[in-house]
Amino acid sequence: MVKIRVIAPVVATPLVAVVFEQYLAAARSDTEMSLATLDKGPPSIECRYDEALAVPDVVAKIVQAEQDGMDAVIVDCMGDPGVEAAREMVSIPVIGPAETSMHVASMLGHRFSVVTVVDSLIPAFDHHAIKTGLTGQLTSVRTVNIPVLELDDHARLLGALVDQSVRAIREDGAHVIILGCTGMAGMAIAVEEGLKKESITDVPVIDPTTLAVKVAEALADMGLSHSKRTYPPPPEKEIVGY
Amino acid sequence: MVKIRVIAPVVATPLVAVVFEQYLAAARSDTEMSLATLDKGPPSIECRYDEALAVPDVVAKIVQAEQDGMDAVIVDCMGDPGVEAAREMVSIPVIGPAETSMHVASMLGHRFSVVTVVDSLIPAFDHHAIKTGLTGQLTSVRTVNIPVLELDDHARLLGALVDQSVRAIREDGAHVIILGCTGMAGMAIAVEEGLKKESITDVPVIDPTTLAVKVAEALADMGLSHSKRTYPPPPEKEIVGY
Amino acid sequence: MVKIRVIAPVVATPLVAVVFEQYLAAARSDTEMSLATLDKGPPSIECRYDEALAVPDVVAKIVQAEQDGMDAVIVDCMGDPGVEAAREMVSIPVIGPAETSMHVASMLGHRFSVVTVVDSLIPAFDHHAIKTGLTGQLTSVRTVNIPVLELDDHARLLGALVDQSVRAIREDGAHVIILGCTGMAGMAIAVEEGLKKESITDVPVIDPTTLAVKVAEALADMGLSHSKRTYPPPPEKEIVGY
Amino acid sequence: MVKIRVIAPVVATPLVAVVFEQYLAAARSDTEMSLATLDKGPPSIECRYDEALAVPDVVAKIVQAEQDGMDAVIVDCMGDPGVEAAREMVSIPVIGPAETSMHVASMLGHRFSVVTVVDSLIPAFDHHAIKTGLTGQLTSVRTVNIPVLELDDHARLLGALVDQSVRAIREDGAHVIILGCTGMAGMAIAVEEGLKKESITDVPVIDPTTLAVKVAEALADMGLSHSKRTYPPPPEKEIVGY
Amino acid sequence: MVKIRVIAPVVATPLVAVVFEQYLAAARSDTEMSLATLDKGPPSIECRYDEALAVPDVVAKIVQAEQDGMDAVIVDCMGDPGVEAAREMVSIPVIGPAETSMHVASMLGHRFSVVTVVDSLIPAFDHHAIKTGLTGQLTSVRTVNIPVLELDDHARLLGALVDQSVRAIREDGAHVIILGCTGMAGMAIAVEEGLKKESITDVPVIDPTTLAVKVAEALADMGLSHSKRTYPPPPEKEIVGY
Amino acid sequence: MVKIRVIAPVVATPLVAVVFEQYLAAARSDTEMSLATLDKGPPSIECRYDEALAVPDVVAKIVQAEQDGMDAVIVDCMGDPGVEAAREMVSIPVIGPAETSMHVASMLGHRFSVVTVVDSLIPAFDHHAIKTGLTGQLTSVRTVNIPVLELDDHARLLGALVDQSVRAIREDGAHVIILGCTGMAGMAIAVEEGLKKESITDVPVIDPTTLAVKVAEALADMGLSHSKRTYPPPPEKEIVGY
Repeated sequence: MVKIRVIAPVVATPLVAVVFEQYLAAARSDTEMSLATLDKGPPSIECRYDEALAVPDVVAKIVQAEQDGMDAVIVDCMGDPGVEAAREMVSIPVIGPAETSMHVASMLGHRFSVVTVVDSLIPAFDHHAIKTGLTGQLTSVRTVNIPVLELDDHARLLGALVDQSVRAIREDGAHVIILGCTGMAGMAIAVEEGLKKESITDVPVIDPTTLAVKVAEALADMGLSHSKRTYPPPPEKEIVGY
Repeated sequence: MVKIRVIAPVVATPLVAVVFEQYLAAARSDTEMSLATLDKGPPSIECRYDEALAVPDVVAKIVQAEQDGMDAVIVDCMGDPGVEAAREMVSIPVIGPAETSMHVASMLGHRFSVVTVVDSLIPAFDHHAIKTGLTGQLTSVRTVNIPVLELDDHARLLGALVDQSVRAIREDGAHVIILGCTGMAGMAIAVEEGLKKESITDVPVIDPTTLAVKVAEALADMGLSHSKRTYPPPPEKEIVGY
Repeated sequence: MVKIRVIAPVVATPLVAVVFEQYLAAARSDTEMSLATLDKGPPSIECRYDEALAVPDVVAKIVQAEQDGMDAVIVDCMGDPGVEAAREMVSIPVIGPAETSMHVASMLGHRFSVVTVVDSLIPAFDHHAIKTGLTGQLTSVRTVNIPVLELDDHARLLGALVDQSVRAIREDGAHVIILGCTGMAGMAIAVEEGLKKESITDVPVIDPTTLAVKVAEALADMGLSHSKRTYPPPPEKEIVGY
Repeated sequence: MVKIRVIAPVVATPLVAVVFEQYLAAARSDTEMSLATLDKGPPSIECRYDEALAVPDVVAKIVQAEQDGMDAVIVDCMGDPGVEAAREMVSIPVIGPAETSMHVASMLGHRFSVVTVVDSLIPAFDHHAIKTGLTGQLTSVRTVNIPVLELDDHARLLGALVDQSVRAIREDGAHVIILGCTGMAGMAIAVEEGLKKESITDVPVIDPTTLAVKVAEALADMGLSHSKRTYPPPPEKEIVGY
Repeated sequence: MVKIRVIAPVVATPLVAVVFEQYLAAARSDTEMSLATLDKGPPSIECRYDEALAVPDVVAKIVQAEQDGMDAVIVDCMGDPGVEAAREMVSIPVIGPAETSMHVASMLGHRFSVVTVVDSLIPAFDHHAIKTGLTGQLTSVRTVNIPVLELDDHARLLGALVDQSVRAIREDGAHVIILGCTGMAGMAIAVEEGLKKESITDVPVIDPTTLAVKVAEALADMGLSHSKRTYPPPPEKEIVGY
Repeated sequence: MVKIRVIAPVVATPLVAVVFEQYLAAARSDTEMSLATLDKGPPSIECRYDEALAVPDVVAKIVQAEQDGMDAVIVDCMGDPGVEAAREMVSIPVIGPAETSMHVASMLGHRFSVVTVVDSLIPAFDHHAIKTGLTGQLTSVRTVNIPVLELDDHARLLGALVDQSVRAIREDGAHVIILGCTGMAGMAIAVEEGLKKESITDVPVIDPTTLAVKVAEALADMGLSHSKRTYPPPPEKEIVGY
């Protein structure tokens, strides 16, 4: 049995609970899923400032998860906030859905596009691609121009996701689509259906939440985790205020 | 339940059966594993010529696997021979262990090295890195200088693997090691033990066979496969001699 | 005197004979040209699967060419199928027209485009550019959307070639055009004429068949061939079915 | 007159005061320098975890600096912690010494090396180079293996800096040296002197603290700051605990 | 006090004097600016041939500048003609505005565009980006299609600059604009004003002449110059005709 | 019949005449070779300053060559001085041996090294690789540390060339060697002989002079030249002093 904790890098909101349903749906029957939200932090992650204020508690919650016996954690945000700092503090795998999705999209097809929420996140996705070495595969980052906290209007979201995916495929040459916000969890199949109505039946759509669960399970199965040579334990010292 | 077929891109040899034990050991209890070997092809893959002669029957065996109801196939060779041609012919995931290992190694640490069998394979691994975009992460390809068909001398192989891994870590700055031949299957833990004797405890060692099974299971669980836009079905036409 | 054999990676078809005329026309008066077609393989190369099934006999025909005293061989296809495997088996130069054209186009101008037959070949050309390091110079791959075996409709082909070349130049910034299929052999001058009617007189059009002959002659003149350190002779072993 | 505030991303320590002397020494006579230290955070930055806990208060101090009428701020650490988040919150230039040093080193010579404190920072410098696009210019990251809080042993530090700089130049081909920790402030000239004793008189040594002041003054003179299109103001929302 | 000489790589023209006013305006009150024009060379730099004929006298004028006690020189052209040769001959900083602008633009935002005079300069700007490693940041080179010697029609120039800048931002994703000819000196603020009328208020516009002065002052303040390991003094020998 | 002129970018020296013998030896029997040396310029090219002073007369001599009816010109120097400026002024191919050698070396093997004369040329070769996109293939630039004008000591030169080539192959992983100065013309076979004594028989050695003749002949045969879109004719204007 594998124990995975999803760390929402935000304080508790209704959206978090909705998204967690998708994590549950993705897990194997013998995987035990749990959820943690932040005590301190923003209600959504839409910029680097949000990330900066979320990260200290994200790391604390990941440290707690390891102490609670988790086999892996997933940070529930396509900014992958705090994953590098947390990997220094724990030995279990810390999954960032953006990084993971980009690697798997690269395995599945020639070029991929990300369809995310708002324009201000475009540089962040470009930086993910630069860091992973996958700039040649990332053909575009497109946005539905809907703020995170309005993602619960599913009809509007779905329409925009399909529209931008069609453009990514036809105009930018995308062969794979990545949903660019974990708040879009559970919509991959509906987007594929929408693409079919546009006569596009040959492009897989990656839901990063589902993928994160599968990769967490796989790493836990193998007992494989991040290199501590890349993420060595921080030196002991007093940190004021924490 | 997931059904995975391992396609050994060689005619049946004792080594194939030994390696298949490792694939079996890596599978989940509810995964059904099967093995296919070639009717036509070389007894081992050590160069591009070997690959070229193996590929037609590799593709045929993968087509057969899909007809037999498999959910995914793994090509049992770090040259990933035939995976691109086969992806055009089937809709199930076709896993190449080299490509998969490089992506996962990149997720786990800053830089990785491959330790493979013979020097003549170095350009092929460099090409895998170039194709995947991961040249910045591949810090070296090192070799044990043991031909594939002598890999059954495990003591000699283990000694050489540990020695080259230590050099990759100390001299080339590797943070993750990939075993560079599926014929080394099952040796990752022993290599990690050997590294410990050299006081290196912070470098994960990836066994590509185990990893391939886990990724095949994960993709099958998700119903996710390669983009048919990248790998469209070949046009119908008569092919002489096949 | 230089002896060059063109290896058509297909079984004998009328198109092969037509294209060979262009190879003949490109050769110096003291160059002896010959042609080989496959006994086993597809009638045209339009995907990786076609390539996979062509390659074993391509390599066999190249081995035969060396035994017949050839000074160089050219594989008559912009997929360069089998050139790497064959270079392991022989010591004479094995020319792939795609690789050669991309290098020479890079010498002649700032950015080049390839105009090829069908969309499914786009990833393959991107991969050629990635492998050669010339991704920065390849500004686009465009297609005429005409299958290989319909290339004999020269008027339709020419119109589409000119149209796509104009777009490559005006929209993508191409400074050099490469004809992307050896089945377009002999049309470079007509395309340049067509560009002139569109007031474009400053863009050279490369015919890869002509170029391949010139490079083969040049390498043969110099006694220069591929590095056997990159392409070492395969180890001796029994290969079943070949 | 230009007003610059140095933001030490640590709580007040004796080293901070020593380093601030160097910032003062670098400023023009008509530049007004001030210093802020953190209320909450680590005493030194040696890993990503330290950075993560420093960043929220770094950003707060930079927001305060703008409110206090500063023309520019410098984050006093070669990890550039918090500079991206802070740029979203203010309109004045936020200088990261690592990013700045790498760009200027690239202007001054063909290849540069960074000589920093400890091995665990190597991936962070590699990431700075990747993000800035300057991986081709960064020829090595070397370390003196002295923790930040022991940098006050100047004789030991100087010896190690010269030794590693010589190796960077002779073995790695460095043409420019960047001091890789702001705690090394003020030692560039002594390192150049040390290089002279090794007969190396042609390699400039960049002190990132001095450079950061000069670039801050220059940007303030020009009224030039970061693009708000890259760093748009965060959306208004309640953030719990801040 | 810092002494800077601007080297116009052209024979004296009215435009040179106009542009020099902008250099003067950018300098600190305690900076002494002077101007040199060529005795031999073209009246404007619009191609590599112009550059080739300008360079010998550019280098001579820079050698003279060092003999005259200058602390730094600026070559007044976005082709940076002669800067590398001159750096071999002198020890003071030799500023090329193109190289400098690209590095600073990369510090200020995610992606930048250059808006220059004529299409024939596009490859040269691409080459600057390739040489500096900043190809990933250069999102487009656009042109106003006005020859250098007609740049004195300021209204026409300004309209075209704003128009192309808007396109660079909206169509190419530019976050920073670089004026691509030193003959556009002094127009950055007017372009920013023009962008505001198009509702674009978040994109800084870099004037390379102003920037070059600021960087020259900064380097002179620090006593920092180019690496003589990259630019060693030429060996002594007789050069005919010079 | 093809007419090729070799442009030595230096004033007449004995070495030029010796090297021209090698050009003659490389030409086909029906190729007419001629030689031009400079009226104004240095006696050898060892730095960018030498290049800068050579280029104006190099371009003039190339313009003369076209007027004299030449079909192609070769600039006899591995710095390729003046080739870009000259391509703007003429319509015939202008061959730079460095650029040409790097492209052809990339066709022949996995990685190449350049063995040149002195360390100060290393950045220039790195820049050639950067410009051509071939940095991934250039594994090292090594030097014999012999100034150009002492290259006539053939025994010393040969010993050093073999020694550095062996190191390039064994230590840097080179699969192809390029002689890095046209003053080494005619020594490729002797270097290959020297490598054989070190048991290295699988690495081709490229003589750039021979190669330049072959490529010039090939381009002339095809009537193919540089893109005038990359190298448009300079605008008409008076240039003072030329």
